[in-house]
Amino acid sequence: ASIDLNCDLGESFGAYTLGRDAEILPYVTSANIACGFHAGDPSVMQRTVKLAMEAGAAIGAHPGLPDLAGFGRRTIDVSASEVYAMTVYQIGALDAFVRAEGGTLKHVKPHGALYNMAAARANLAEAIAEAVYRVDPALTLFGLANSELTRAAERIGLRAAHEAFADRGYLADGSLVPRGLPGALIDDAETAAARVVRIALEGRVSTPDGEDAEVRADTVCLHGDNEHALAFARQIAEACQIAGVTVKPFE
Amino acid sequence: ASIDLNCDLGESFGAYTLGRDAEILPYVTSANIACGFHAGDPSVMQRTVKLAMEAGAAIGAHPGLPDLAGFGRRTIDVSASEVYAMTVYQIGALDAFVRAEGGTLKHVKPHGALYNMAAARANLAEAIAEAVYRVDPALTLFGLANSELTRAAERIGLRAAHEAFADRGYLADGSLVPRGLPGALIDDAETAAARVVRIALEGRVSTPDGEDAEVRADTVCLHGDNEHALAFARQIAEACQIAGVTVKPFE
Amino acid sequence: ASIDLNCDLGESFGAYTLGRDAEILPYVTSANIACGFHAGDPSVMQRTVKLAMEAGAAIGAHPGLPDLAGFGRRTIDVSASEVYAMTVYQIGALDAFVRAEGGTLKHVKPHGALYNMAAARANLAEAIAEAVYRVDPALTLFGLANSELTRAAERIGLRAAHEAFADRGYLADGSLVPRGLPGALIDDAETAAARVVRIALEGRVSTPDGEDAEVRADTVCLHGDNEHALAFARQIAEACQIAGVTVKPFE
Amino acid sequence: ASIDLNCDLGESFGAYTLGRDAEILPYVTSANIACGFHAGDPSVMQRTVKLAMEAGAAIGAHPGLPDLAGFGRRTIDVSASEVYAMTVYQIGALDAFVRAEGGTLKHVKPHGALYNMAAARANLAEAIAEAVYRVDPALTLFGLANSELTRAAERIGLRAAHEAFADRGYLADGSLVPRGLPGALIDDAETAAARVVRIALEGRVSTPDGEDAEVRADTVCLHGDNEHALAFARQIAEACQIAGVTVKPFE
Repeated sequence: ASIDLNCDLGESFGAYTLGRDAEILPYVTSANIACGFHAGDPSVMQRTVKLAMEAGAAIGAHPGLPDLAGFGRRTIDVSASEVYAMTVYQIGALDAFVRAEGGTLKHVKPHGALYNMAAARANLAEAIAEAVYRVDPALTLFGLANSELTRAAERIGLRAAHEAFADRGYLADGSLVPRGLPGALIDDAETAAARVVRIALEGRVSTPDGEDAEVRADTVCLHGDNEHALAFARQIAEACQIAGVTVKPFE
Repeated sequence: ASIDLNCDLGESFGAYTLGRDAEILPYVTSANIACGFHAGDPSVMQRTVKLAMEAGAAIGAHPGLPDLAGFGRRTIDVSASEVYAMTVYQIGALDAFVRAEGGTLKHVKPHGALYNMAAARANLAEAIAEAVYRVDPALTLFGLANSELTRAAERIGLRAAHEAFADRGYLADGSLVPRGLPGALIDDAETAAARVVRIALEGRVSTPDGEDAEVRADTVCLHGDNEHALAFARQIAEACQIAGVTVKPFE
Repeated sequence: ASIDLNCDLGESFGAYTLGRDAEILPYVTSANIACGFHAGDPSVMQRTVKLAMEAGAAIGAHPGLPDLAGFGRRTIDVSASEVYAMTVYQIGALDAFVRAEGGTLKHVKPHGALYNMAAARANLAEAIAEAVYRVDPALTLFGLANSELTRAAERIGLRAAHEAFADRGYLADGSLVPRGLPGALIDDAETAAARVVRIALEGRVSTPDGEDAEVRADTVCLHGDNEHALAFARQIAEACQIAGVTVKPFE
Repeated sequence: ASIDLNCDLGESFGAYTLGRDAEILPYVTSANIACGFHAGDPSVMQRTVKLAMEAGAAIGAHPGLPDLAGFGRRTIDVSASEVYAMTVYQIGALDAFVRAEGGTLKHVKPHGALYNMAAARANLAEAIAEAVYRVDPALTLFGLANSELTRAAERIGLRAAHEAFADRGYLADGSLVPRGLPGALIDDAETAAARVVRIALEGRVSTPDGEDAEVRADTVCLHGDNEHALAFARQIAEACQIAGVTVKPFE
């Protein structure tokens, strides 16, 4: 079995530093690089593309809503045509840095509120899928597993990478336990790692009720913003190796 | 003889409309489309790329300084590496819209203060030329005729389009009469058109002193922001046709 | 009877011009001036404050969501504490221009999506009312008549100006006919003017069903963005004069 | 003798944290709080005003150029009237938070490139002084000692606070040793503290050549962005106490 480990990178801006990109990169097989709307600026993007290519990660664009002050986490009532245009724009901007370094852009993963909006609303999901497809149909679109976004990707003819979360609990129907409810967050790195391994091997994970949920996961989301997150990444990578789960970019 | 007529387009933003893109496009063979830094937003860019392609114009990126409030006209003391990164970013963003519509990006022309800074400072000119070259060495770089920018383009191996101005006077050494001095501006459309024709046929134009200046012009800059500018464009296009000067994209 | 006529002004930005401020001002008794978040920039604000003071209008701050590209019309999922802070900020910025010109800020009217959000959600309404009150309890807060915003204003001890719309239809319960339904918009200037007069004199207006709705209106909203809007303003001012309705700032 | 110790604060933005405001505040008598153009956002401003008032520091506005990506450190070729308007705007925004918390704004200190531009160019210095004066003539304007800015402040009738730097060398004429030259930076906290004490007591400091320079200092600039800067602050505060130099806001 194999799994892809993806992480959001390049989220610094100007004089502001965020994330420990160099430290998390050894565990990352797919790097989602911010494109200047929710985070990142052109100089940060250039630097991060180089860093991720040197680390051997597959490079992806990580487009977000135009909301630096809210870090792209606030829902904005944008239209489908606005989402289409902002996605085309950001993919192109990131792609140019990748081409300038002699690499090839591999995937697109929406950020924050845009990710959540695209998971739930078919028209926005379709706008994103169409943007990706029209810029380059060979790109993979990352989205919440079994969401409107992965469905829209598959409908239009894109490869979709279904994403699971190592640090989130799942309900029996395969959806995430809402934040705030018991079992929503997995705090312990060892437990999280064991869950990732089981997802990779069996496509299943236990729920807070002790049942099993089916969870499709082509890729698992890592965080790289603090010591705790780095420990999670290490633990997951180690557990995968021990269990014989190959960690590599999704294809 | 032949000449290219280029014009800055897509400079609206959100609720704000600027320029008469649809009216000027019939006279334009190379469309320089704003990329969101000094003007333009993703939706405007999408619309303008479509419009320019339908009109049959060659499409170019028109990157500017990150200064919407100043419309990219205020010099900002940016470093060469910042200029490199902001140029890569903006070319990529515009290129993605062109690819999404099935077209091919043909050229890059810096805007406003970035254009003037690149004409005068070798390090910034080189940063732009390198950005263009690394994103796509088949792109043409438009710059002030015989400036640092066209020199940097030619040094790195890009095709450079030397630009002249129909509405500006020239000194005997081929430089522009500084704004504010007598003869700096050509107000009369007929005179301007005759000058463009002579530049295209002879590579020469008369100076305020009555001498002749050598002016290299692969492309001439049109404006499309008011009735007067539109009249200039019409007059120039007509005069070229009458004189047998072919108006077509620079190659 | 008397009525206040208010209008959003100062919505230009940098090189972009929007609105016919000088033409509408003769009909305006309360000027709501944009504060740089959804429209306006510091130079525009300075100019507009001067213009409105010369015209003798009462000056108000017109704070909006931080969304120039969307002109403040897109709902953003901001928290109450963010709304508080952005309102304090924008009132202060506008107030400084008024003080610099020797005037006194009189009122605050939220813009676009912020206006609508504050009309419907008590927590956001309270955040705005608290911001206004803490900056200056002598300010009047303009809001949709009988909305969460006017209620929050009155609860905290501010004077609230209940706003009605000359160009919108009303249902029997005093709420606006939703856009898209028959009777939502009043297209005819004469009809609109007659409705304003009746609102001022009787506090009543006819509904699409032919019934009467009670409409409280301390102030009526004018637009100043095109010829049609200017004609409305003229008609309303004239009709008020003929009917003996005094047009003056709300107090 | 007495001296004021000022520090730039509130330079975080959205998800981005910069500076150790809480740790430096015990040493600060005048807090210069960023106003959202080069750094800071409304929520950060609110928080920082509260924090500084609780610490008993005098509160000042710290306006900068509109350049978040460049942290206000890049010269922008803005006109005097633009500088006037952006200064009025930012003072007003910060002042509103101070008023909302029941405090009184005491001073204004321009940031970064705006500080340097105002020190050297009389027309920009006058624009800033006029902005401060027109918003509130009781405000003190902080500027580089004996610069165009302090001169403009005094000419218009404002109190000027002449600023010296604990970590910078001075030439015999009282100007700063240009960065890059020997003696430009004072790296050692003890030396820096001794220099501040001597400036406060004698108005003099030794130059790299071993001569003495006259340095007028009503206020000394502290930094609060790292461990080293905090050590400087502690050392300076201690040395002043030992030497009997009272540390208090400039009046």
